[in-house]
Amino acid sequence: MNFVVLSLFPDMICECMNTSITGRALAGGYINLNVIDIRDFSQDKHLHVDDYPYGGGAGMVMMADPVYRACEHARSLCSDGKGRIIYMTPSGRRFDQNTAKELSHYDDLIFLCGHYEGIDERVLELEADDAISLGDFVLTGGELPAVCIMDAVSRLIPGVLNNDASACEESFEDNLLEYPQYTRPEVFMDKRVPEVLLSGHHANIATWRRQKSLERTAVQRPDLLKKADLTKNDVEYLEKIGFEIVDSPKKDQ
Amino acid sequence: MNFVVLSLFPDMICECMNTSITGRALAGGYINLNVIDIRDFSQDKHLHVDDYPYGGGAGMVMMADPVYRACEHARSLCSDGKGRIIYMTPSGRRFDQNTAKELSHYDDLIFLCGHYEGIDERVLELEADDAISLGDFVLTGGELPAVCIMDAVSRLIPGVLNNDASACEESFEDNLLEYPQYTRPEVFMDKRVPEVLLSGHHANIATWRRQKSLERTAVQRPDLLKKADLTKNDVEYLEKIGFEIVDSPKKDQ
Repeated sequence: MNFVVLSLFPDMICECMNTSITGRALAGGYINLNVIDIRDFSQDKHLHVDDYPYGGGAGMVMMADPVYRACEHARSLCSDGKGRIIYMTPSGRRFDQNTAKELSHYDDLIFLCGHYEGIDERVLELEADDAISLGDFVLTGGELPAVCIMDAVSRLIPGVLNNDASACEESFEDNLLEYPQYTRPEVFMDKRVPEVLLSGHHANIATWRRQKSLERTAVQRPDLLKKADLTKNDVEYLEKIGFEIVDSPKKDQ
Repeated sequence: MNFVVLSLFPDMICECMNTSITGRALAGGYINLNVIDIRDFSQDKHLHVDDYPYGGGAGMVMMADPVYRACEHARSLCSDGKGRIIYMTPSGRRFDQNTAKELSHYDDLIFLCGHYEGIDERVLELEADDAISLGDFVLTGGELPAVCIMDAVSRLIPGVLNNDASACEESFEDNLLEYPQYTRPEVFMDKRVPEVLLSGHHANIATWRRQKSLERTAVQRPDLLKKADLTKNDVEYLEKIGFEIVDSPKKDQ
């Protein structure tokens, strides 16, 4: 996977991506990263990249020309000479684990990170192939969302995680939240690890974990539970602990 | 606002927070940042902070003891000696602009960033005052979400943005997406800036921008539109362009 990032803060992108799992993925050659400083494409002698908005209002708007030329350069770094430019904006479609899976199938992804009050709409019309939002909140720029997406996508690339099972067992893979985890010691501050986890009985452990996931999702994210792939046993357990599942389980589909 | 972050990757937090608006907010004393390396609280001679999960399964779990002691240290750095520990986890409540506003009223916020397969549940029961998720996706750790939240919250602290209007006019303040922005030149690649923005007629500009926000929200985020504070004029405009608003406008409430 080849990531290209267009940003006014290239150092921040590099520092984040060189950390932890993405750092190992870069070192291992599973992912590649090009960070392009949009300012390098300014033709202004003061390297300005922003100007006042037409029509007035607070803040500055990133100018079309340097962004356009940075985008064209980014495309030239892609295997097909085109890539896919994703504009990071709160107005975009909402990122989730399904989007991460979808993006993990591309060879090249280009992230265009806005700053100030946004980017001149005309260059977005010309260059943006996609627009993605991390959620309904306002950040200073698109850098953090781009790094989040690169992190989430990198984890799905075979070989990046030490153990492929890790990617599958995690939250959202089946629309259930994760069960609680415990490690040594057996007793911490008078709190014991649940007995079943010490039993060595794999089937019972799996059942307990599934039930904890169901319970946690029912309490904290009933909206997710509706999308989950529930078995008959799951529905029975949820009813037993007081959660009625109105929608029929998807298992029959 | 005093931010304390508990992490295994302190450098990444510092680099991100020293950039752009949060960097200026730190330099200007509007926010304060303490980053604590959880590894410093390991009592293991190899500075281990993780161990295998009880009950088996992929990955490692962060141990209760170093996390507990790091949390206690973090609390001692807060003005009331307690603070508020927010565990960053996909199982938490979903972060949005309203959460950002809510958090901006605290004096001290402590972010606990997990890694690996999570943190021993017992220390979370003892120490976590809140649990927040950035969205329905899986990241390598809680660091990026914590930085996103600190960015979103910092922007709401009076004085951090150059122009207070910037914080108010932005997306989600009124549950509408932002209108398109334009800056010089008037013509870029044969695309002209919309005439109204050059007119100097403030009322017309405001109407045009409102209509563009409505239209964009109706097309891209109809779910948001339902929560928006729509005027009678807004509803009439939406109907004119083919969007029927089933829910009555909230303006009457």
